[in-house]
Amino acid sequence: MTDFAATKAMFHLPEGMIYLDGNSLGPLPLAATKRVGDMMQNEWGEMLITGWNKAGWMAKSSALGDRVGRLIGAEPGHVVMGDTLSIKVYQAVASALDLNPTRKVVLSDNGNFPTDLYMADGLLKSLGDDYELRVVNPEDVADNLTDDVAVLMLTQVDYRTGRVHNMQALTEQAQAKGIVTVWDLAHSAGALPVDLAGCNADFAIGCTYKYLNGGPGAPAFIYVAPRHIDQVRPALSGWLGHEAPFAFDLDYRPGAGIERMRVGTPPVLQLTSLEAAMDIWDMADMETVRAKSIELCDLFIAGIEAKCPELTLASPRDGQQRGSQVSFKFHEGYAAMQAVIARGVIGDFRAPDIMRFGFTPLYIDEGDVNAAVDIIADVMNNNLWDRPEYKIRAAVT
Amino acid sequence: MTDFAATKAMFHLPEGMIYLDGNSLGPLPLAATKRVGDMMQNEWGEMLITGWNKAGWMAKSSALGDRVGRLIGAEPGHVVMGDTLSIKVYQAVASALDLNPTRKVVLSDNGNFPTDLYMADGLLKSLGDDYELRVVNPEDVADNLTDDVAVLMLTQVDYRTGRVHNMQALTEQAQAKGIVTVWDLAHSAGALPVDLAGCNADFAIGCTYKYLNGGPGAPAFIYVAPRHIDQVRPALSGWLGHEAPFAFDLDYRPGAGIERMRVGTPPVLQLTSLEAAMDIWDMADMETVRAKSIELCDLFIAGIEAKCPELTLASPRDGQQRGSQVSFKFHEGYAAMQAVIARGVIGDFRAPDIMRFGFTPLYIDEGDVNAAVDIIADVMNNNLWDRPEYKIRAAVT
Repeated sequence: MTDFAATKAMFHLPEGMIYLDGNSLGPLPLAATKRVGDMMQNEWGEMLITGWNKAGWMAKSSALGDRVGRLIGAEPGHVVMGDTLSIKVYQAVASALDLNPTRKVVLSDNGNFPTDLYMADGLLKSLGDDYELRVVNPEDVADNLTDDVAVLMLTQVDYRTGRVHNMQALTEQAQAKGIVTVWDLAHSAGALPVDLAGCNADFAIGCTYKYLNGGPGAPAFIYVAPRHIDQVRPALSGWLGHEAPFAFDLDYRPGAGIERMRVGTPPVLQLTSLEAAMDIWDMADMETVRAKSIELCDLFIAGIEAKCPELTLASPRDGQQRGSQVSFKFHEGYAAMQAVIARGVIGDFRAPDIMRFGFTPLYIDEGDVNAAVDIIADVMNNNLWDRPEYKIRAAVT
Repeated sequence: MTDFAATKAMFHLPEGMIYLDGNSLGPLPLAATKRVGDMMQNEWGEMLITGWNKAGWMAKSSALGDRVGRLIGAEPGHVVMGDTLSIKVYQAVASALDLNPTRKVVLSDNGNFPTDLYMADGLLKSLGDDYELRVVNPEDVADNLTDDVAVLMLTQVDYRTGRVHNMQALTEQAQAKGIVTVWDLAHSAGALPVDLAGCNADFAIGCTYKYLNGGPGAPAFIYVAPRHIDQVRPALSGWLGHEAPFAFDLDYRPGAGIERMRVGTPPVLQLTSLEAAMDIWDMADMETVRAKSIELCDLFIAGIEAKCPELTLASPRDGQQRGSQVSFKFHEGYAAMQAVIARGVIGDFRAPDIMRFGFTPLYIDEGDVNAAVDIIADVMNNNLWDRPEYKIRAAVT
């Protein structure tokens, strides 16, 4: 059981703000600033280069990997932190292609987050004209698991609608066709229970600045199944993935296990901030988080549908088919979201017409949901969004 | 002119330590901890997702790129921060290969830092058997600039000996043969004046945790020459390099100019720490830093050679041919370095027998050099290194 009152008390939540955008950037854990400050003063400041050993900086990537791994059903020792999600997508897909050398197609869907498609496209363009990125509708993925597909690359939870792919079934169907799977857990890790081991997943990747609350630019993670790891060529074969980084050999030899998926020098400030966030996650279990998340989302949907007839639900109504977010469509969604934000309810807009709200039980409760519904209803029913200043698009939305 | 007393006062330097390893990890700028703490509390904490616009997080990668760019002679708007040096090596070499599609060879030298070779090797293995990583001795590079070479990938300053490649001459000779150049400035940026524009360099990359003092895991940078940037396919084509990241288009279109070399979400904590470091660098000019660095290195060499006959200079004697470091060979170099470190002089060891000392005028002065020489002489002349505990190798050296 998770004590949500206790976890909520461990975050800094600004006065007068209801933060429903933790699916984009999680809030600051109260302990994070001191934790990072102490690391900077006492470790970087006092130990300097010896901090890599003495302060355990070099071991953080794997230690944090295991803590994240618990939330996504990974076997211990099979998740490691590093780089950005985009880079980890590239590494996972390149490594997966390598395990399936006679095939040239990467299959994905058009509900995937664009950077996954961009990174795969960039990789395949480098590999040559005989490689293909095949993008189908999310509902057509199962029918497109054909014998020419090398890698199935999917994001489990759609970033706009929250629709959840059936990881268990799709992995099984893909593997039956000799396809290697890469699962992006950006909107899954900390949002719903994931069972990578139980699903027999091949590769998984994700980020830690959303539901995991690691902070802006927190590192990504990568998972490789135990049955593959000793065969995997990391593709991005950096020195920290080498068997003996400090031997400075001229030839690359992959390190043991998941360590080989490391690339360059780890971002110690970001990792330290993530540690403070994972201290909170260590108090939580994903089953109660999931139950509470569905409860909050259902409450929000019921409230908005009762009070805002102009908004159309864009997320699955069945909580089991939905991530930890609720999206509504509105033709002036961008302006409406700006007006809602101006009233202190922070959600975000996703083109072309999606108003997106994330529900994160670690620090959002029923009172927040009810208050948010009232504010959104006020904005919608009084057309408070219909002002020119709300229609000017910012660079980052 | 740089006021070195003023810059020295802006770093935290532990009592009783003479830090000659700033070529591996620079010390903590005094302002950095508060700067990062303020960013965490006031920006992440209070602004949350809106910090990307309101606090200017999204603009940091280019703004810092220009500040680093001044130190390496880059045209404004042609350097951007991101990822790690290993990742940027990969991106630069892949992009450079793309500009030279009929050739299949990447030429480098065996004085290069291993991760550069590992990353290139990983890339070329992905591209296929017809690609080749050709590694020659540093002194043989010029003779190996043959018509089949696509890319010349060199680190300007040898990480072990400090030997400096002639960037101007090698770039010119390479380009005369139709070869695209990639220069790694890991041990150059902040160590000696680099003139990328004047040398007509094609690509350059580097890190910011060494001489630039950005902190452990500080981000890397990449430079692309103005004449290439609009033709470059970034290879690692992430969403933040897209023309319109927040349009969430399914197809990748490279962004304008150097922005296209961005990949994923930037590490805002690390970038903020780097800002504090660059505030100090903004007070410095590379000509006086270089003159002082040569003076300090010469003083160190003279002192060690006068007092430690067992140590053999492994760096060029001519300051112009040397980076901002001095290396000596000793058959028990590892143990000797541990003994020296135990006495408060921090250098590092590089296999097989190199004792390496970095000289960084922003915070190291003549008094430090003289005191370090005396301590090293005491260790060497009294065989203080000859203890079993100094011979046990740590994981990270």
